[in-house]
Amino acid sequence: MPAQERTGLWLVGARGSVATTATAGLLALRARVAGPTGCVTELPAFAGVPLPGWDDLVIGGHDIVATPLEKRAEQLAGAGVLGHAVFAAVRAGLAEVDAEIRDGYHPATHTGAQADAAERLSADIRDFAVRHDLARVVVIDISSTEAPCPHLPEHDDLGALEQALADPARAVLPPSSLSAYAALKAGSPYVGFTPSAGITLPALQQLAAREGLPYAGCDGKTGETLLRTVLAPMFSARALKVRSWSGTNLLGGGDGETLADPVTVGSKLESKARGLAALLGDEVTAPLHIDNVPDLGEVKTAWDHVSFEGFLGARMSLQFTWTGYDSALAAPLVLDLARLVGAAHAAGQTGALTELGFFFKDPLGSDEHRFAEQTRRLTDWAATL
Amino acid sequence: MPAQERTGLWLVGARGSVATTATAGLLALRARVAGPTGCVTELPAFAGVPLPGWDDLVIGGHDIVATPLEKRAEQLAGAGVLGHAVFAAVRAGLAEVDAEIRDGYHPATHTGAQADAAERLSADIRDFAVRHDLARVVVIDISSTEAPCPHLPEHDDLGALEQALADPARAVLPPSSLSAYAALKAGSPYVGFTPSAGITLPALQQLAAREGLPYAGCDGKTGETLLRTVLAPMFSARALKVRSWSGTNLLGGGDGETLADPVTVGSKLESKARGLAALLGDEVTAPLHIDNVPDLGEVKTAWDHVSFEGFLGARMSLQFTWTGYDSALAAPLVLDLARLVGAAHAAGQTGALTELGFFFKDPLGSDEHRFAEQTRRLTDWAATL
Amino acid sequence: MPAQERTGLWLVGARGSVATTATAGLLALRARVAGPTGCVTELPAFAGVPLPGWDDLVIGGHDIVATPLEKRAEQLAGAGVLGHAVFAAVRAGLAEVDAEIRDGYHPATHTGAQADAAERLSADIRDFAVRHDLARVVVIDISSTEAPCPHLPEHDDLGALEQALADPARAVLPPSSLSAYAALKAGSPYVGFTPSAGITLPALQQLAAREGLPYAGCDGKTGETLLRTVLAPMFSARALKVRSWSGTNLLGGGDGETLADPVTVGSKLESKARGLAALLGDEVTAPLHIDNVPDLGEVKTAWDHVSFEGFLGARMSLQFTWTGYDSALAAPLVLDLARLVGAAHAAGQTGALTELGFFFKDPLGSDEHRFAEQTRRLTDWAATL
Amino acid sequence: MPAQERTGLWLVGARGSVATTATAGLLALRARVAGPTGCVTELPAFAGVPLPGWDDLVIGGHDIVATPLEKRAEQLAGAGVLGHAVFAAVRAGLAEVDAEIRDGYHPATHTGAQADAAERLSADIRDFAVRHDLARVVVIDISSTEAPCPHLPEHDDLGALEQALADPARAVLPPSSLSAYAALKAGSPYVGFTPSAGITLPALQQLAAREGLPYAGCDGKTGETLLRTVLAPMFSARALKVRSWSGTNLLGGGDGETLADPVTVGSKLESKARGLAALLGDEVTAPLHIDNVPDLGEVKTAWDHVSFEGFLGARMSLQFTWTGYDSALAAPLVLDLARLVGAAHAAGQTGALTELGFFFKDPLGSDEHRFAEQTRRLTDWAATL
Repeated sequence: MPAQERTGLWLVGARGSVATTATAGLLALRARVAGPTGCVTELPAFAGVPLPGWDDLVIGGHDIVATPLEKRAEQLAGAGVLGHAVFAAVRAGLAEVDAEIRDGYHPATHTGAQADAAERLSADIRDFAVRHDLARVVVIDISSTEAPCPHLPEHDDLGALEQALADPARAVLPPSSLSAYAALKAGSPYVGFTPSAGITLPALQQLAAREGLPYAGCDGKTGETLLRTVLAPMFSARALKVRSWSGTNLLGGGDGETLADPVTVGSKLESKARGLAALLGDEVTAPLHIDNVPDLGEVKTAWDHVSFEGFLGARMSLQFTWTGYDSALAAPLVLDLARLVGAAHAAGQTGALTELGFFFKDPLGSDEHRFAEQTRRLTDWAATL
Repeated sequence: MPAQERTGLWLVGARGSVATTATAGLLALRARVAGPTGCVTELPAFAGVPLPGWDDLVIGGHDIVATPLEKRAEQLAGAGVLGHAVFAAVRAGLAEVDAEIRDGYHPATHTGAQADAAERLSADIRDFAVRHDLARVVVIDISSTEAPCPHLPEHDDLGALEQALADPARAVLPPSSLSAYAALKAGSPYVGFTPSAGITLPALQQLAAREGLPYAGCDGKTGETLLRTVLAPMFSARALKVRSWSGTNLLGGGDGETLADPVTVGSKLESKARGLAALLGDEVTAPLHIDNVPDLGEVKTAWDHVSFEGFLGARMSLQFTWTGYDSALAAPLVLDLARLVGAAHAAGQTGALTELGFFFKDPLGSDEHRFAEQTRRLTDWAATL
Repeated sequence: MPAQERTGLWLVGARGSVATTATAGLLALRARVAGPTGCVTELPAFAGVPLPGWDDLVIGGHDIVATPLEKRAEQLAGAGVLGHAVFAAVRAGLAEVDAEIRDGYHPATHTGAQADAAERLSADIRDFAVRHDLARVVVIDISSTEAPCPHLPEHDDLGALEQALADPARAVLPPSSLSAYAALKAGSPYVGFTPSAGITLPALQQLAAREGLPYAGCDGKTGETLLRTVLAPMFSARALKVRSWSGTNLLGGGDGETLADPVTVGSKLESKARGLAALLGDEVTAPLHIDNVPDLGEVKTAWDHVSFEGFLGARMSLQFTWTGYDSALAAPLVLDLARLVGAAHAAGQTGALTELGFFFKDPLGSDEHRFAEQTRRLTDWAATL
Repeated sequence: MPAQERTGLWLVGARGSVATTATAGLLALRARVAGPTGCVTELPAFAGVPLPGWDDLVIGGHDIVATPLEKRAEQLAGAGVLGHAVFAAVRAGLAEVDAEIRDGYHPATHTGAQADAAERLSADIRDFAVRHDLARVVVIDISSTEAPCPHLPEHDDLGALEQALADPARAVLPPSSLSAYAALKAGSPYVGFTPSAGITLPALQQLAAREGLPYAGCDGKTGETLLRTVLAPMFSARALKVRSWSGTNLLGGGDGETLADPVTVGSKLESKARGLAALLGDEVTAPLHIDNVPDLGEVKTAWDHVSFEGFLGARMSLQFTWTGYDSALAAPLVLDLARLVGAAHAAGQTGALTELGFFFKDPLGSDEHRFAEQTRRLTDWAATL
């Protein structure tokens, strides 16, 4: 990546908890009021990789809510995600970023063809790039999880899709995929950090191929699934037979509310289950729950119970409880992805960046879920940039 | 390893829980009444490695207690380690192995020079090899943990050591190291599966070098430490800062009693602590307890509490509870080590087998504690045998 | 209770896990191969209460499965619920009890009016009493949980109910309530140890009143709910505000399978939720799951996470994990209830025995869920018998 | 208690975490910026008891550190114990209370007879009473835990004690007991909220009797022990046999540091162990640890593992993890004790207030550790005031 190049980070869902934490964090890093704990790209293994520096990243984005970043950050400070000192130091900067946020796409309020909406979204991204003289803009979706999206034939073919998008009577793409489409049309690399459809539709991957753009996803791996992909390989390496792996997730905040809807939670549960089955096979009993517990606020608690069999049929168990701030876990990864995907784009890489599986519950283009192996692949790949 | 070669497995502590479970398990595998769950060397990655087969292993050993294997196995069946069906199937075979167990060395009852004791122990191993026409005998120490051994100058120099051993007025070696000395003198590879001094003394490693023998250790990694070496690298890979890692181990059985002695438990705690410091650095607060809770019998329960810091200083935690039968976890690893060390010896390898760190809390000759990396090194190495 | 009186214990679901454990346990107590651990009525507080002795209890029952008690007990011994020594000691006795088990009522196989079925069930109980010269027979339902039963007008009025029962074209009572009806018609006190409808229907309570019979229920309190009724009063007594109480239950065995049916599990979840709301009020968020995890066998594991608020709004939490054999927890309570309800009947008590709330998740005729208070009421009441 | 009477609350350790939280809390209650969550005396059961109101309590105290309350409160706000809004509201009030804090007694800096020191401490309390026109001053010790105090003959006899106190060459009383002596000499009721010797010495109880003063203690029951006294009676009431009860406490803050000293921690461990033995008998294996984990700050985490036996010898377990702010748990109890002990003094009660066992790990004058029974006794007693 040539020196002095500036990279845009365009957040879909730019006023949510994760986005606010990522934005506040970037400002805090620049202001030297916080260190890069949780930022993978600051580890020694990435020292020589030509990544954009913290000072070279510029944030903008789309959102469908209007609560200013400053107010959202104040709530997060009250909830323990940000310290009050950090909040005070970044307050002014948040207002500047807030001015770079444009209205997102919402199917209930949009009239006309989806193609028009996409064009508007694309224009927002292009304008942002011009306004800030950016070499590229990485688009990352961290908006609320959508309900699973019914499959349509147009999702498999770019030509058919673009025809359908032009038809004002139809709405063939869910918002996350419309955002992905708009990003690609704006020439931007795209990252799906949620389990929503986003760029998983084949037609969009055709578009990325045509435009020569890289992309990555899906669904940031920040808690229970991270632990599962760390622990499951241990059982395999030791020839211990996992018989059941039960999980319960308690979460409050906006995420808890979104996932309280049984249809929406389907996306998330599917994404989580795929990893375990890939690691341990389908015969493992694996009940999994996500419960909305509003009083927990920004804290997420996961309890997992693993029952396994050892030598001569001995029955044993492992339990763990993980308690964390989801936003604090996700936000530095969003900054990492902006840097890495930006660098990949600068290096001319295209298509699914399978080496970024390290970051995702359901890695696009890869069946590798073992965390240690994902770590190795990530650092090996970064060394080639 | 040439076909038809038979390999001896000489267990120091041959009538303990782990030895009894390993012996019963080998007999059960041969009788096809149990599968190889927990046996790492039966994983696909080891398919082409020239390891001795289950039918090619012959067990004997030393012990200072007289309780027959059969009776010990009955107790373990009552405690849930073995099924009653397995016990019934292996009963006769246990009596045969029991006939191959010789009196171990006990400083309180031995009179004369330690060299004489070592000569007797060596002779037992050599006789065993002759009696069963064995190509080699792998000696594995699974006897009770000793109190930490005070350092003597003789421990650093083989010449001085042998001179001291010949002196009837002195007892320079702890029992575990005398066993290791005897094993090497009998031409046997040696494995220290306990935290006792064993082969860690430089003089004994000089002897192994002189005799061209391989060895491995120390302290089998079966529970809490296994999890720590799996989980700690996750925190590092994600740039999360571990602030404290507290652990409590509850165990009954003979091991609990042995470790209830505050001096003896020192060996174990040191061995456990070294790994965590190597993985995370010394600044992590890491209180660690081992409690003797007789009513737990063969079950071992470990609770760990990890406090860590994420992005912008957010404080989070991970707790786990591991509940397992220590013998069922250790026994298949003992069989794995017999096969792997036997194969290494057949392949002419000598010195510390650092690639076996996968099996140990405190790997001899290696600073690598990360479990996934240990797994990779083990399988890469096995492929070269 | 006059000396030498013998009391029958008629188990509905007499070949299930709980029944088999209760029967084996009674035989073991008589044979002096086990002590009365878990039997509340053997505590000093009950020393002077005129309860039937272990030797005065005679067991029979109904079931719709044919697996002999002996075989079921053998499975339970394999699963760790019974020791092998106990099994050997009670084997012969189990066969004798098995001969006292009659076919239960199953709607799928019954033809004709429900009144005929009830008459047959009643006759089985009366015959049992005559055959063994019993002063009374306590009927306890420990059969599989039924799906929640839709309310019918006939459930509220005994006259209308009896008319409907006589109609071969109708089946107005669920099996559990038909059993309760038959018990009362046979002059037996009745205990509902499951969350099924049983005696909760007003028409059946009218019948009990008419016949002057005592009854008790519902749903034995053996694990998670027991702990909740112990812990919730602590928060209240300390003026701590519980904000959420989340629970997950993992269970295998027949119970796990029955409760895997989302309709059936409804009964259980409702019964569990009522207690918490009564203790802490309705505003507590309380997600609750019951998962079928077959590999756990007879073991039941519950994880609860309680989030509470203290002084000045400080947020704190309590988690617990309870791991137990459900049958071992329930069986002694079944024996206790046989003794206590038998004694109450002998003492001429009638109607809902509200002082037995100690034993139940959803105590009939009482709003008192606080366990310590239930304990006090039970012992005070027993002293009056 | 006559209307309009004002009650002093004299805190020994008035600048510690608990004292600061109690003081900030009282100010917040008065300012109506916080509710009385955690204050037992605000429960409906205490509605008619003639307790001093929040507006009638005046706080002063002794301390040997000089950090002002305001600064300490700011630290606690940063640590999550107080909200920032509460801190802002009470800031001015804290400075006023700070002006009422006098130098405590420190053996290292005091010269002369202990009697002189006691006289000075007493005078501070008397002056406080006069200055604020207080009807009485309740003294509560919440200073750091002392090392266990070696027994001297003078501790058993008031006459001998007073003679020894007058001797400048001797220091017969530990600081906590000197404080208790001074309190009684000032005519104040006394509460020992720590496990230090305080008023437990017989000579001091003789003094209280002579002066006609009530007192209570020892060691506030706020976490692990609270749960133990709630849970242990459940096992007893259900005739389940507890076999082991293992506990680990992780704490940071000043308390963690104080208790990191193995001698000092002895007091605490003894106090904790007595309760469990009283509840379950001495044969229960009960290893217990308190670890200093500075990074946990004000948070205290306890993990307990209970192994118990049920019917027919079935082995089961309960684990719990309690995570709380120790100061937030203790502070409202300190306010409750000030009110209750003040009211008891107004009502003319003298000697050990055994009905306050509800508040203590090691209740003075009572063997009743069962929490529900303690709750009943407390409310019954309060109704008589």
